[in-house]
Amino acid sequence: MIGVFDSGIGGLTIVRELLRKLPGYRLIYFGDTARTPYGTKSPETIISYAIQDTEFLLEHGAKIIVVACHSASSVATEALREKFPEVPIFEVVTPSVKKALSVTRKKIIGVIGTRATISSGVYQRKVAELDPEVKVYGNACPLLVPLVEEGWLKKPETRRIVKKCLIPLKMRGIDTLVLGCTHYPVLKPVIQAKAGRRVTLVDPAEEVAEEVASFLSQHPELERELARGEDHQIYVSDLTEAFERVARLFMGKKVKLLKADCEMSHVIKPNASC
Amino acid sequence: MIGVFDSGIGGLTIVRELLRKLPGYRLIYFGDTARTPYGTKSPETIISYAIQDTEFLLEHGAKIIVVACHSASSVATEALREKFPEVPIFEVVTPSVKKALSVTRKKIIGVIGTRATISSGVYQRKVAELDPEVKVYGNACPLLVPLVEEGWLKKPETRRIVKKCLIPLKMRGIDTLVLGCTHYPVLKPVIQAKAGRRVTLVDPAEEVAEEVASFLSQHPELERELARGEDHQIYVSDLTEAFERVARLFMGKKVKLLKADCEMSHVIKPNASC
Repeated sequence: MIGVFDSGIGGLTIVRELLRKLPGYRLIYFGDTARTPYGTKSPETIISYAIQDTEFLLEHGAKIIVVACHSASSVATEALREKFPEVPIFEVVTPSVKKALSVTRKKIIGVIGTRATISSGVYQRKVAELDPEVKVYGNACPLLVPLVEEGWLKKPETRRIVKKCLIPLKMRGIDTLVLGCTHYPVLKPVIQAKAGRRVTLVDPAEEVAEEVASFLSQHPELERELARGEDHQIYVSDLTEAFERVARLFMGKKVKLLKADCEMSHVIKPNASC
Repeated sequence: MIGVFDSGIGGLTIVRELLRKLPGYRLIYFGDTARTPYGTKSPETIISYAIQDTEFLLEHGAKIIVVACHSASSVATEALREKFPEVPIFEVVTPSVKKALSVTRKKIIGVIGTRATISSGVYQRKVAELDPEVKVYGNACPLLVPLVEEGWLKKPETRRIVKKCLIPLKMRGIDTLVLGCTHYPVLKPVIQAKAGRRVTLVDPAEEVAEEVASFLSQHPELERELARGEDHQIYVSDLTEAFERVARLFMGKKVKLLKADCEMSHVIKPNASC
């Protein structure tokens, strides 16, 4: 199976894109809703959570791992590759950077994301590796996640907050903007309107799905190992009505969420050993 | 020591009030910043977390427990009293309800809080027990916590969102409004302005501190057991600069946050046993 994890429900935007680009492959998802969000937490904590999430997916039959969470992609990818050297691990930052580099004309890229993602400076480092001439400016927009989760996609408050969030980037003259959080693509119309028509938006969900598809086409031995079928499993560490509502928003249809029980119980059960 | 726990940093508003009303007593605080917030999570998950938080405080010498988190107070108090029958456990709902009942003239009370708090219906139940003639209307305002944590205390977006949040309660004709979340008291000026001068705000921090003080004056045997001193301990399960900034906002001065290490490590460490 293809394993995907996220701090919560937002990673379903990646699942949706994977299903579109790689129909027929079985997918397993883990959303850590019991500890969501990750983007406000420290790198050390995010790394620990990401390792646990990956272990859950591997124990349930995942053969490759897609880190859907931008905060985890930004701070935990290296630790995951070190801890699980045999497992192909994909993350959302690198494919977004490649795409952004291929579309920017003025060589000035903007990135919006959570505080953890932006503070990590990972976009600056990746761009510097690939094309040191390109400038990258980031801005943390922590209010966008709760606005999306409330379903406030078109409210005037959301428009105003998006506008404020983009001002420092527009002042830098960006012509390309990476949507560096799983939640942001559902705000695309508002973000495009406030960024201006001349700014190209990069949606990491599309890019990472493309990268996984291309990797599999080059690795037929792994492709054969992945299970086929339509019975995808969407696990969460905590289940509420609000999470189900948000899942629907991100997948574009109703989704059955499974509560991850004993497997992730150290997350939510008392008396876990120290 | 007097033990206080919260889903994060907001409970420091209660600590501040306890220090004011009960100067000289040693305090230990635990803020579960590694899993914050609680208010978006399910009752089962909140109960499990509240039990772990209480165990942490008791293991560190707390003799009485104050549940500063409104979401935990709303859904976990009963479970905590069952699990720790010997420990006096205080929560923020009951004293707020008592205060609201004592000030309402029209017998119509409003409550704002997180989704978990409002969905629990605990305010309605408590009021019905004490005065069945009084009506209570609740409204969940999940955006206020992230706005406060961003320090957006006076921005026009915050004013607009507060206004929207209060409209359904004002339409019911409330004359008293319980600030049912640790974060809301820092928004008092905006909330008062939007609620109108005739609406009395109830700040649970003041009420719970009053209740603890009154309980101790009636239980000298317990009062003697509590340690004295100024060396309060403020523990968190995750530490970031943003948490330190918010702590300062809530305490009104700089606070030294201690990272809870091994003791709460099942929260953040991998390989915790299932």
